[in-house]
Amino acid sequence: MTRPDPAGVETPVGCVDLARARANAEAVASYAAGHGLGWRPHVKTHKSTVVARLQLDAGARGLTVATPREAEVMATLTDDLLLAYPPVGEEKLRRVVALAARTDLKVALDSEEVLRALARAAPVAGARVGVLVELDVGLGRVGVARPEEAVRLARLAHELGGVRFRGILFYPGHLRGAAEERQAGLAEVSRRLADTLGALDAVGLPPEIVSGGSTPTLWQSHEVPGLTEIRAGSCIFHDREGLELGVAGPDEVAYTVLATVVSTAVTGHAVVDAGSKALSKEERAGGRGGYGIVVEHPEVVVRSLSEEHGVLDLQGSSWRPRIGERVRIVPNHVCVSVNLQDACIAGDGDRWEWMELEARGRGPWTG
Amino acid sequence: MTRPDPAGVETPVGCVDLARARANAEAVASYAAGHGLGWRPHVKTHKSTVVARLQLDAGARGLTVATPREAEVMATLTDDLLLAYPPVGEEKLRRVVALAARTDLKVALDSEEVLRALARAAPVAGARVGVLVELDVGLGRVGVARPEEAVRLARLAHELGGVRFRGILFYPGHLRGAAEERQAGLAEVSRRLADTLGALDAVGLPPEIVSGGSTPTLWQSHEVPGLTEIRAGSCIFHDREGLELGVAGPDEVAYTVLATVVSTAVTGHAVVDAGSKALSKEERAGGRGGYGIVVEHPEVVVRSLSEEHGVLDLQGSSWRPRIGERVRIVPNHVCVSVNLQDACIAGDGDRWEWMELEARGRGPWTG
Repeated sequence: MTRPDPAGVETPVGCVDLARARANAEAVASYAAGHGLGWRPHVKTHKSTVVARLQLDAGARGLTVATPREAEVMATLTDDLLLAYPPVGEEKLRRVVALAARTDLKVALDSEEVLRALARAAPVAGARVGVLVELDVGLGRVGVARPEEAVRLARLAHELGGVRFRGILFYPGHLRGAAEERQAGLAEVSRRLADTLGALDAVGLPPEIVSGGSTPTLWQSHEVPGLTEIRAGSCIFHDREGLELGVAGPDEVAYTVLATVVSTAVTGHAVVDAGSKALSKEERAGGRGGYGIVVEHPEVVVRSLSEEHGVLDLQGSSWRPRIGERVRIVPNHVCVSVNLQDACIAGDGDRWEWMELEARGRGPWTG
Repeated sequence: MTRPDPAGVETPVGCVDLARARANAEAVASYAAGHGLGWRPHVKTHKSTVVARLQLDAGARGLTVATPREAEVMATLTDDLLLAYPPVGEEKLRRVVALAARTDLKVALDSEEVLRALARAAPVAGARVGVLVELDVGLGRVGVARPEEAVRLARLAHELGGVRFRGILFYPGHLRGAAEERQAGLAEVSRRLADTLGALDAVGLPPEIVSGGSTPTLWQSHEVPGLTEIRAGSCIFHDREGLELGVAGPDEVAYTVLATVVSTAVTGHAVVDAGSKALSKEERAGGRGGYGIVVEHPEVVVRSLSEEHGVLDLQGSSWRPRIGERVRIVPNHVCVSVNLQDACIAGDGDRWEWMELEARGRGPWTG
C-alpha cells in the first residue's frame, strides 16, 4: 500500500499516534515498575504487532489476549502469554494447546469443565498449560465468588496432569464511577482478594501470579495488596471514557477516527462519515452523552450514530463546519472502534504508514 | 475453506439461513410488485454477493449501497445502483464516478457542494451520474427540509453537465415506535413528501424516482403517495427490533450469531463467547432491554456485553446451560452484527458453506 496522507486518505479511518502510544506505554511500565508490579497489557485494544512490540519495548513482561487468534499473532513477539478467556470448544482448545506447546501460556478459567478439558487436551499437544483461577470481585460477569471455590479449582489444577496452577486473575471492570467510588471499590476488591489469598496460602498453594488491573483503576493498582501484575489495555491509546474519568489528559489520547463532514443540511448539526461502523454505538461516558468528541472542537459531541453517519451537535459551538472538512473523533471506547477498522494509519510526527491489525478477526493465523 | 458444521465450527460466528432469506426476499418483492413499487434493497445489511444475488433473483430492481466498496462489489451483479450517501473527498469521488462510467449509478445528496463536485468529476471519467435529492422527512439526520431547497438542487442537477436529476430520496428512520405511531408518522412523511413533489411538478421537474422505505415501516410503504420504490434492507434477515415491532415473526429471522457457553460461575447468569465484537452493544429494542435474545430459549435476554462476553439473564428461565452448549442469538440490530463477522456460515437446510462478506470494509475492491 502507498503511504497514507491524513489530508487525503479515504475516511473514516482509525489513526494511531505512535509517539503518544510509546509515551503511554512508558508511563504505565514506569508506574508498574515503581510499585514492583508487572505489566502484561491486553492487546484486544490494538490487535497490532506494531503496538504490542512498543509495549514490550517499554517493559511489558508479556501480553494478555482474549482469542486464539490474538494469542497466535502475539506469540510471534513474546513467549509470555496470558489468555484471559476460557477456551471452550474443540477447535479453540486445539489452537490453544498447540500454542502452549511452544510458549509459556497461562489460561484464565472459572470452571472444572474447562480445567479438565485443558488437562485432557494439553498432553496430546505435548503441552503443559498454566492455569489462573478467575475470581469475581464484583463485576458479576465471570469468575468464582467464594474462596473455597477458588481453592477447589487451584487444587485440581495442581493435581491434574497437562496443567499447572500458576495463580489467580480478576477484572475490576465494574469500577467506572467517580474517583472516590473507584477508590472505595478497590478497597472492597482488596478485601475479597485477601480472603482468597488467605485460603490459598492455608492449603499451601500461594499464587505465583495475581493478575488484575483495568484502565479506570490503573493508577491505583498499587493499593491492592498482593497484586503482582496489571493487564490494563486501553491505556495504550486511551479514549473518551479515560478522559472523562481523569485517567488521561487530552495530550495522551493516541487513537482517533479521522472523518469527513458530508452534510450540513440539518440546522444545528453536521454529519460526518464516521458512524457506528467506525466508532461503535457504545454508550459509555457520563456527562454529555453521545458517542465521541471532536478533537479540534472538544465542545462538540457526536450526538447520534447511524451505520455510516455521525451527527455532530453544534449547539454550544461557534464552529461552522464546511462539507469536505476533516475532523478527528475520540470514541467513547477505543477497543471496539479499533476492531471496526480494516487497518489504521499510524504516524510518528509527520511520517504515516498503514498499520495492519493482524490479530483482528477469528480465523487461523498463518503468519 | 472446508465446509463448516454448525455443531463444530468455532464460535462466535454469524449464521445465515438462506431458505429464510430467500422467502423474505420473495415476500418483500411480492408486496412491492403488488403495490406497483420497486424494491432496491440496501446491501449494508448483508454485504454479500450471495445474498444480493438472491434479492435480485426474487425481483429486486437493483441494489442500494452506502460506500464505494459496496458499490464496486455490487456492480458485479447489477448495473442499477443507488449510492444512498454523498461521496465526499477526492478518492471517494474518483471511485464513484469511475463506477458511474460503466453502470446506471444514482447518488443521493443534499448539498450544492457535493452536487458540483460530482458534476466536475464525472466528465473526467466519461460518466454522467444520476442525482437523487435527499429530503429530511423527520429523522433530522441529513436531507433538505424545505421544498424550495429541493427544487433548487433539482434545478442545478438538471442544468449542470456530468449529472442528471433523477428524483428524490428520503429515509423515515425515526419511525420505530408502536404500530400506531409508525402509521401516524408515515402520514406526516406523506404530507412533507407531497409538498416537495408539488413544488418539483410546478417547475417542470417531476421526479422519475421517489425512493423511500425502511424495514419498520415496510408493510405500510404503499400508503405513501408518490413513492416509486423502497430500499428496506434489514428485512432480508430481520432482527430483534423487527420481532419486537411485529414486522417479522420468529420463523422469518434469517441471521443469528452462533455462540458457546463459556462460564456459569455467576449465579443467575450464563456467559457466552459472543460479546460486543460479535453482536454490537447497540441499545435498540424496547421492553426487556439488553442486546439480543436466545433462539432456543426466547425468554432469555443478553443482558450485558463486554467485548468477548455476552451475559445471558437466566432469571425467568428454567434452562440451566452447561459449559460447551451452543446457542443462537438474535441481535438487536442485524446490520452492525453482520459487519463484525469475518465471514458467515450460510445454509440451506443441512448444507452449510462459508459465505464471504465481500462488500465489508472500505478499501478498493479488486474482484
